[in-house]
Amino acid sequence: MTTPSKSSSQITGFALIEDYRRVRSTTMRIVDPLETEDYVVQTAEFMSPPRWHIGHTTWFFETLLQTYLPGYTIHSEDFLYFFNSYYEGFGKRIERARRGTRSRPTVSQTVEYRRRIDSKMEEFLETIDRRADAKELHALVRLGLEHEIQHQELLVYDIKHLLCDLYDAPRTLAPEAIAKVDGAASFSGGLFTLGYFGGEFGWDNEKPEHHVYLEDYYLDRAPVSCGDYLKFMLDGGYDDWRWWLSAGWDVVTRERWRSPLYWEFDDGRWMIRDFHGLHSVEKMADHPVAHVSYFEASAYAKWAGKRLPTEAEWEHAASYDQQTGIKSRFPWGDGSPGPELANLFENQLWGTAPIGAFPAGASPGGCHQMIGDVWEWTNSDYAPYPGFKTEFNEYNDKWFVGQKVLRGGSFATPRSHIRATYRNFFHPHERWMLAGFRCAGDKA
Amino acid sequence: MTTPSKSSSQITGFALIEDYRRVRSTTMRIVDPLETEDYVVQTAEFMSPPRWHIGHTTWFFETLLQTYLPGYTIHSEDFLYFFNSYYEGFGKRIERARRGTRSRPTVSQTVEYRRRIDSKMEEFLETIDRRADAKELHALVRLGLEHEIQHQELLVYDIKHLLCDLYDAPRTLAPEAIAKVDGAASFSGGLFTLGYFGGEFGWDNEKPEHHVYLEDYYLDRAPVSCGDYLKFMLDGGYDDWRWWLSAGWDVVTRERWRSPLYWEFDDGRWMIRDFHGLHSVEKMADHPVAHVSYFEASAYAKWAGKRLPTEAEWEHAASYDQQTGIKSRFPWGDGSPGPELANLFENQLWGTAPIGAFPAGASPGGCHQMIGDVWEWTNSDYAPYPGFKTEFNEYNDKWFVGQKVLRGGSFATPRSHIRATYRNFFHPHERWMLAGFRCAGDKA
Amino acid sequence: MTTPSKSSSQITGFALIEDYRRVRSTTMRIVDPLETEDYVVQTAEFMSPPRWHIGHTTWFFETLLQTYLPGYTIHSEDFLYFFNSYYEGFGKRIERARRGTRSRPTVSQTVEYRRRIDSKMEEFLETIDRRADAKELHALVRLGLEHEIQHQELLVYDIKHLLCDLYDAPRTLAPEAIAKVDGAASFSGGLFTLGYFGGEFGWDNEKPEHHVYLEDYYLDRAPVSCGDYLKFMLDGGYDDWRWWLSAGWDVVTRERWRSPLYWEFDDGRWMIRDFHGLHSVEKMADHPVAHVSYFEASAYAKWAGKRLPTEAEWEHAASYDQQTGIKSRFPWGDGSPGPELANLFENQLWGTAPIGAFPAGASPGGCHQMIGDVWEWTNSDYAPYPGFKTEFNEYNDKWFVGQKVLRGGSFATPRSHIRATYRNFFHPHERWMLAGFRCAGDKA
Amino acid sequence: MTTPSKSSSQITGFALIEDYRRVRSTTMRIVDPLETEDYVVQTAEFMSPPRWHIGHTTWFFETLLQTYLPGYTIHSEDFLYFFNSYYEGFGKRIERARRGTRSRPTVSQTVEYRRRIDSKMEEFLETIDRRADAKELHALVRLGLEHEIQHQELLVYDIKHLLCDLYDAPRTLAPEAIAKVDGAASFSGGLFTLGYFGGEFGWDNEKPEHHVYLEDYYLDRAPVSCGDYLKFMLDGGYDDWRWWLSAGWDVVTRERWRSPLYWEFDDGRWMIRDFHGLHSVEKMADHPVAHVSYFEASAYAKWAGKRLPTEAEWEHAASYDQQTGIKSRFPWGDGSPGPELANLFENQLWGTAPIGAFPAGASPGGCHQMIGDVWEWTNSDYAPYPGFKTEFNEYNDKWFVGQKVLRGGSFATPRSHIRATYRNFFHPHERWMLAGFRCAGDKA
Repeated sequence: MTTPSKSSSQITGFALIEDYRRVRSTTMRIVDPLETEDYVVQTAEFMSPPRWHIGHTTWFFETLLQTYLPGYTIHSEDFLYFFNSYYEGFGKRIERARRGTRSRPTVSQTVEYRRRIDSKMEEFLETIDRRADAKELHALVRLGLEHEIQHQELLVYDIKHLLCDLYDAPRTLAPEAIAKVDGAASFSGGLFTLGYFGGEFGWDNEKPEHHVYLEDYYLDRAPVSCGDYLKFMLDGGYDDWRWWLSAGWDVVTRERWRSPLYWEFDDGRWMIRDFHGLHSVEKMADHPVAHVSYFEASAYAKWAGKRLPTEAEWEHAASYDQQTGIKSRFPWGDGSPGPELANLFENQLWGTAPIGAFPAGASPGGCHQMIGDVWEWTNSDYAPYPGFKTEFNEYNDKWFVGQKVLRGGSFATPRSHIRATYRNFFHPHERWMLAGFRCAGDKA
Repeated sequence: MTTPSKSSSQITGFALIEDYRRVRSTTMRIVDPLETEDYVVQTAEFMSPPRWHIGHTTWFFETLLQTYLPGYTIHSEDFLYFFNSYYEGFGKRIERARRGTRSRPTVSQTVEYRRRIDSKMEEFLETIDRRADAKELHALVRLGLEHEIQHQELLVYDIKHLLCDLYDAPRTLAPEAIAKVDGAASFSGGLFTLGYFGGEFGWDNEKPEHHVYLEDYYLDRAPVSCGDYLKFMLDGGYDDWRWWLSAGWDVVTRERWRSPLYWEFDDGRWMIRDFHGLHSVEKMADHPVAHVSYFEASAYAKWAGKRLPTEAEWEHAASYDQQTGIKSRFPWGDGSPGPELANLFENQLWGTAPIGAFPAGASPGGCHQMIGDVWEWTNSDYAPYPGFKTEFNEYNDKWFVGQKVLRGGSFATPRSHIRATYRNFFHPHERWMLAGFRCAGDKA
Repeated sequence: MTTPSKSSSQITGFALIEDYRRVRSTTMRIVDPLETEDYVVQTAEFMSPPRWHIGHTTWFFETLLQTYLPGYTIHSEDFLYFFNSYYEGFGKRIERARRGTRSRPTVSQTVEYRRRIDSKMEEFLETIDRRADAKELHALVRLGLEHEIQHQELLVYDIKHLLCDLYDAPRTLAPEAIAKVDGAASFSGGLFTLGYFGGEFGWDNEKPEHHVYLEDYYLDRAPVSCGDYLKFMLDGGYDDWRWWLSAGWDVVTRERWRSPLYWEFDDGRWMIRDFHGLHSVEKMADHPVAHVSYFEASAYAKWAGKRLPTEAEWEHAASYDQQTGIKSRFPWGDGSPGPELANLFENQLWGTAPIGAFPAGASPGGCHQMIGDVWEWTNSDYAPYPGFKTEFNEYNDKWFVGQKVLRGGSFATPRSHIRATYRNFFHPHERWMLAGFRCAGDKA
Repeated sequence: MTTPSKSSSQITGFALIEDYRRVRSTTMRIVDPLETEDYVVQTAEFMSPPRWHIGHTTWFFETLLQTYLPGYTIHSEDFLYFFNSYYEGFGKRIERARRGTRSRPTVSQTVEYRRRIDSKMEEFLETIDRRADAKELHALVRLGLEHEIQHQELLVYDIKHLLCDLYDAPRTLAPEAIAKVDGAASFSGGLFTLGYFGGEFGWDNEKPEHHVYLEDYYLDRAPVSCGDYLKFMLDGGYDDWRWWLSAGWDVVTRERWRSPLYWEFDDGRWMIRDFHGLHSVEKMADHPVAHVSYFEASAYAKWAGKRLPTEAEWEHAASYDQQTGIKSRFPWGDGSPGPELANLFENQLWGTAPIGAFPAGASPGGCHQMIGDVWEWTNSDYAPYPGFKTEFNEYNDKWFVGQKVLRGGSFATPRSHIRATYRNFFHPHERWMLAGFRCAGDKA
């Protein structure tokens, strides 16, 4: 049985105001290139108008002020109605699918609302260490910031769905593949300790640490690439029911899927559109495939004679060094990824990197780019860990059915928000997020 | 048999450029109070984002330039795709229900497009009298302007659905009731000549003039008022299937209709929201009821022991003087309504007037406010007149099924666009437009 | 102005019991070849299980007994619930679309119910002439029989949709074309008296007689044949939006219509399935086309450079002799059609006859087979005649919106039920009934 | 680590023909009380007409004959089309939701089909031991019988949905509670071997045996009873979003759920309808609650401060003796349940037994009625076990997403078909099957 390293760090008096300012300004940096019109539109039911994210993340802090700041008067009943997302406990709210049917509050009213709450919050934050409920408030503010960081990633997805290459994304020099990555890494089974083991912040759904027993398995060293995926397509993958889960085949048939989202068939060849334009698949051949559903990931794996990993296998491969028996927070260890990896999981690229671009970030077992390019589908249902205790009302536990866990983190995931134990989750048919996958298998 | 007066005026060399400028600038005056965000939103399938109207009315003239101006190059393929409405003959177009899912072109790009086409059009208009196809072009430009005027009214409906009293509508002094209007006017039957009889412009669906035989009938001197309609509601009208057409009862049940659109039940009483705010029904009691469907109009009439008029009855009552045998273009005669009536059918009020406000505009038989407050539902199906010939591709004749004719014109109908023979049409369940009704009956 | 003949016959003391027995046994004769399983199935929302018709027509008479027979106790609350169709006034009822989700009451229970009510009714009928309300009861029983006759025709449609050639339909010798029928008959316009003018029974929606003014028109001497219609299809009729009403084009696109209902494309050629099997279009080329929607009829007419007739034109052509000025009940006059026409409009053929099979039944103007093969679409909306008064609760007037009038009568229409003034009505997209059409036009 | 007992029994030469006859006749015994009409109706999309089950289980064996019996000619192409369920590999098939839209083949044609295939099969079975592929054929026939047994249980569900107490179910003497069962059994965690360990037949989804690590947990000794569940209802359980998964709350709201399926609110009190009639909840208070969805089970558990067990916990509690370390096939051991338990899991009762009726069938840890009354929801997703290998095309593995595992077996589950390792699965919103649950929890 492994003896995982336990971190005992606590959420203590960090410079909360500075964190607050940093996170809040990052959100505004993402929307900075938008036109006013862009803030208002909802392209599909799953998407939200960018202005709504601006307001909703502010609403979060206003509900905190309502509870904890004596004499606080709300900014506007209507804002509370419009900017609540799904919290039954906070009163009535606009239907999700109708967020794009309102033009008011305007962008400038929303930004003014944000500015006003920020000002109240900063005043308030200066006082909290003197309060009896300081610890509770620290935790709540931290929750608000983690919540906002999640919305930063959703904003990137939503902006991509609305604008894609019409968005003026920063163009940094794209990294190149400097290592050849192929084949699979082999892992011996046994007991493994799964889950969050301390550090600055962890969600309740990553806890508690607990034992799982793994059989021997292997995990591919690289995520499935666009080039790999094209082979599946050209082999008739979307026309052959044998590879598909029944529910997936229904979607393929009904929606007439022929490729991942954002792929376009143009003049006889497949092209991929991203924030930087429209590219031939050839040019993207060694990038991880993105914007595939669980159904597509699962079909590819079956076609390839493999399977998707469980989330325990993924976490084991990402965080556990079989030589030393040490479990780390990241594939590359517990510390900072170093400058050469900075781009790996900070949205400075606004895109994926080719496989082999970051050998320094590989896991002890030699799996590359597990964090920083695309989230990776696992075949694990999103369900509570044994011993799970809710820490946040209506945050994680009300979704414990019908969704699949994704692990890793994409180029749009802010660096401070990610770790190997992080559990993301989406429905098996969803494709608008930056989701890819890597294959696994049983050892013979 | 009546001998209707025939007007012989033709669409001849009027100052086309001036008309063009006047109509085009009126459109922009309507959207002037909007915020950028307001231009983008589509609140419901039947509604369009205001910016779309700006672009679509411009698209109309660009298709004209494409055909008639040698060497003209289109502004943008994408604009053609986005701004076409339903014309199969003009290529692919965005689905109607998805007009609100795009933020681009932006408002300023759309206005720039409009400015550019206006400039081309004005240049082009200066040349057309020298062309062999001058007559055809005059007609087409006139069609484009009438088309734009129709969209001006749709814009008012759409803005109301989006903003209602958040829109900064001009506030003019509201007129007061100066005459008491009640009871019904009586009409003797016989042969009547129905349809457009000349003047500047008429749609193909108003033509040709033809005979119809009318039985004796009566028509209420006033449209049904909000006060009248409230009585129907308080008598349980929305709960009693006996008053309703079967298809109407289905909608009432499914949509849980309890009142006209824009009525709100607040703290035990019914209120009506319009461009100027939220008012008690008492305050609006003598205004014509608006925003009712055909189903509601029909149910009210049955409840009241009456019926809706046919469109022939309505036109007969509105245009024919039983004393002189003369048929006029308007209830008040052929000419201008005079200053005291100007507000009646020009959107200067942005609202209805109380019944009795405009005795000078009454018809020879004494029916008041037939034009200028609300469109009035008739029980006539929208179908071609005998001898109908299409004049405009895909304009009027492809809608000849499943819709009901409305007559009159609302406060949002531009004055130059209306006449007693005008046939408007909507589906029986629609309520977003300014539709009311007046009752009729058979003579004992 | 025409002076139509007026019949003054009244519904008087006919042998009501014999009529009752005759109608009731005809219904059972239609279902006689069915298997038990056939009675239960509902193939589509518009269709009803045959057993439901058996029970519903019985339910009608039971509601009469409930009201008029003192001390009558109902057979079963559940039967009342299951066998009510759409009458709000008679309490709760099963949703129409769910009639096929129940297996009980069984066929034998339903037939037993029918037998029991028949027995009660026959007893009751013997007493009614002695009652003060004899006249009212005569009218009600007659209504019940006419209602049942309508359901006999619906039964034929429903059985066709369920079984088509699996139903063991009587096979009589099919008539042959003995006259050549082509071209159009010409009619002079003027005032015409439209509507029911007396006889045994007429629906309220055929009344009152009233004047209409007709322009000169022509009407084709034959309905559009399968051979004609195939030409429209082969000319790409279903692919060309120009011929279609906008609402029709939507249906064609959504439902992928390529032909009338019951046509099948098999091995490169079009075939037509009817009660007697699957036939090549060539074999059916001179039969009237059937099972087309209003949209298809309208598209064909536009393609052919013609239009559909109004219901007034149709009735005028079918019943009015321009030479004598006499209006008759049928195209061939007021009397019986004679033995050679018997098959024309009595369901002994279980199919259409070729055009030209019944020259003796042609109208004075020379239009053939206006009654007895297929109902013919007109472009008239189903709306009340001027002076209309409801005679039957919830029978005809609650449908006065959104439907088109059909005239004529099909081979499934019982002979005692039809006349030239009869108004049938269906929604413009419906095709399961025996609907065809003939074209009309304006005179140059 | 436990050392589970391993059974080495193989599928060997059992009397295949006798088994075949026994299973086939059991199916016909279930439908024996049906009226012809009952065989044809489909009450909802998830349900199938009983006659379809008769034909589909026969179709299975006909596909076997097609492959293995040289010269076999199929009975009817149409039967193949109608009786295929979801097997893409066996050609086109009728849409599931449309199985109730056909009345043909009739019941007697279906029974004749069944008789004919049975006769062919019995002939064929006599020959198979002489064939080279004897082993493969044994396995296939066994699969066909297990498949048919599954459909026997579905038949019971479908008949209940169609007829409930209109079905003439056998009435046996209902057992009484003879033991008091309350509280929870406590289990120590550690490694446990999960999955099928041999015996006559096991599905691929129960294999392979593999290790799982369990934390300490407790499991209630009794399933949640109707009386318990009523308390949740009366405490406002269906009105309080706090207890519900988000997806469950959506269903509760949309479908207006207020109770389990088959509960009726009548004159102020809740009643439960089952095969034997309508009963007060009081009378059923100590019976296991049935016909609840996963959402309801999960909401109840949260309300009760507990949770649902994982499938590993359930199987561990059901099959493992903590004293001896021995794993058995059933809670009561490896053998036959003995006469006093016969009713527990053989559909002789056509209903549940009160809790405490079968103390002899309790598990080593003291959990009662784990098998034989209702299936029990677990919170485990239906996913492949590590090392899973498909044994049956399109049988189990195409459903590995979006469903929850149920364990146990209901009174409608044939005894030969059940064991502690059996994995049943349904979508979280489904309630038509005999699904209940028992609660679990973490040890403090």
